[in-house]
Amino acid sequence: MRQLLDAGKIKRGVVVGGGYIGLEMAEALVRHGLEVSLISRPPQVMGTLDYDMGALVSQALRDVGVSLYPEETLTAFETKDGKVTGVVTDKRTLPTDIVVLGLGVRPNTALAAAAGIPLGEKGAIRVNERMETGIAGIWAAGDCAESFHLVSRRPFYVALGTVANRQGRVAGINLGGGYATFPGVMGTAVTKICEIEVARTGLQEKEITAVGLEHVSAVIKSRTKAGYYPGAGEITVKLLAEKGSGRLLGGQIVGMEGSAKRIDTVATALHAGFTVEDMINLDLGYAPPFSPVWDPVVIAARAVAKKL
Amino acid sequence: MRQLLDAGKIKRGVVVGGGYIGLEMAEALVRHGLEVSLISRPPQVMGTLDYDMGALVSQALRDVGVSLYPEETLTAFETKDGKVTGVVTDKRTLPTDIVVLGLGVRPNTALAAAAGIPLGEKGAIRVNERMETGIAGIWAAGDCAESFHLVSRRPFYVALGTVANRQGRVAGINLGGGYATFPGVMGTAVTKICEIEVARTGLQEKEITAVGLEHVSAVIKSRTKAGYYPGAGEITVKLLAEKGSGRLLGGQIVGMEGSAKRIDTVATALHAGFTVEDMINLDLGYAPPFSPVWDPVVIAARAVAKKL
Repeated sequence: MRQLLDAGKIKRGVVVGGGYIGLEMAEALVRHGLEVSLISRPPQVMGTLDYDMGALVSQALRDVGVSLYPEETLTAFETKDGKVTGVVTDKRTLPTDIVVLGLGVRPNTALAAAAGIPLGEKGAIRVNERMETGIAGIWAAGDCAESFHLVSRRPFYVALGTVANRQGRVAGINLGGGYATFPGVMGTAVTKICEIEVARTGLQEKEITAVGLEHVSAVIKSRTKAGYYPGAGEITVKLLAEKGSGRLLGGQIVGMEGSAKRIDTVATALHAGFTVEDMINLDLGYAPPFSPVWDPVVIAARAVAKKL
Repeated sequence: MRQLLDAGKIKRGVVVGGGYIGLEMAEALVRHGLEVSLISRPPQVMGTLDYDMGALVSQALRDVGVSLYPEETLTAFETKDGKVTGVVTDKRTLPTDIVVLGLGVRPNTALAAAAGIPLGEKGAIRVNERMETGIAGIWAAGDCAESFHLVSRRPFYVALGTVANRQGRVAGINLGGGYATFPGVMGTAVTKICEIEVARTGLQEKEITAVGLEHVSAVIKSRTKAGYYPGAGEITVKLLAEKGSGRLLGGQIVGMEGSAKRIDTVATALHAGFTVEDMINLDLGYAPPFSPVWDPVVIAARAVAKKL
């Protein structure tokens, strides 16, 4: 494939799916000089963000030259001589030389199910805090295993390297006769599409609604560095808090270099159970090469607090 | 001065003081092509870090060509025709064309003292949580005012833009008849010397000793991004925790691009009163362009937890 790309024999690519894999592949294909189209069923890419934040990522993809076809569904492929030549959706046919399917992740738990091990969320193996399954002495960790969401306080499924790694460590300690627990996850994730950094943690709007909570939110635009400092880029931060109490429920960030890892402050505040009012007083690092005087995360917390 | 620099008439500079201002000026002079010497009384620059972490900053300065003269004290200047020609220390005379004094900050509170307003830590104006001085109806904020340290639970003095800005907001709300409080600071600060980023929060070793606590600490080296990712740079993280309880007391970071703002995670954990064991389970953002699978801050927390 690398040879075909280098020889210029692959000119057009269609990516199906607007999640992490789809977007990272769209970026890779654009960088190889292909004409790239991306099909996704939701109105915006990056479904782990709310639509208003996902729209920023959609725009970033268009800005690098990706043609987006949102709210379309893959129905068939066209082929010739055993090779794909087109992608058929419910609205059009896109001629292409290559297709990337980024259709999401499902835990492969057929063996566990056949063995009588209880499954849970999205068919993942149900485990307790020690990563032990419903059958004593059988342990599970990683993309096949369920997690617990520390904000919704409900079982949760997420297939990420960090979670797998941490679950594996806990399972290993317990298997070896030690004692360790994995309390759960915040749903933190970061990614990068060309120059745009994307981050999220906690619950997004639809997840908040699903657990029966009401929320207020604010979206603010600021800069990654002091406005006058060379290289200061735009950053958009959205925070969501429980209506009334102001308890932080989640956060999303889209912006230029230096944006994504600011989600760690939001994730740590979630672990602490902070309200957005608690966050206003966070003593975060400031110097012109790193931040405006008020960090964008704190600006967002103030904006939410005003709406409570 | 800019004209003299551009004309190449200033060839040598001596900076007195190894704090934020001294280091930032040393960087600026090096970038203008001067031969730069830096004199400081402590054995390492950046006295708000422990010596082991300050040593990394000292080395970074040497690497960019600054000649360091630690453990030396300024005693006199040599002059000719009303212009400085040399800096005399207790050990040597350094010929120079320009001298920068970065000797630290003291609050200018003579007027307040003369008016009978009580002073506190380092001569700064004593204020309550609402930024009101010891005399009702008189308020103070910024570099002249005292703060409260949220880890040591003692009065504290720090002259930083973030603190001044936040104190000013609180004083303004109260002056205007509203009600707002400024709970205090963590002593968070970040800076940059050429390519090296430096950050600190909470208490350093000598501050921990001063408040009568015992601590354990660990220093770990990791990378700012996944090791195989282009641009991954070294990062050194030190965390300090209370002996026995494991309560986080402070953190220090020295490293390449992407290092400094990781201090925000440590600062937020301090606000939360977390132990280093709590920090092991933080669900921080991971993707190869941003972090190793285990964020360096979490690696450091694990290293401290092992020593408890």
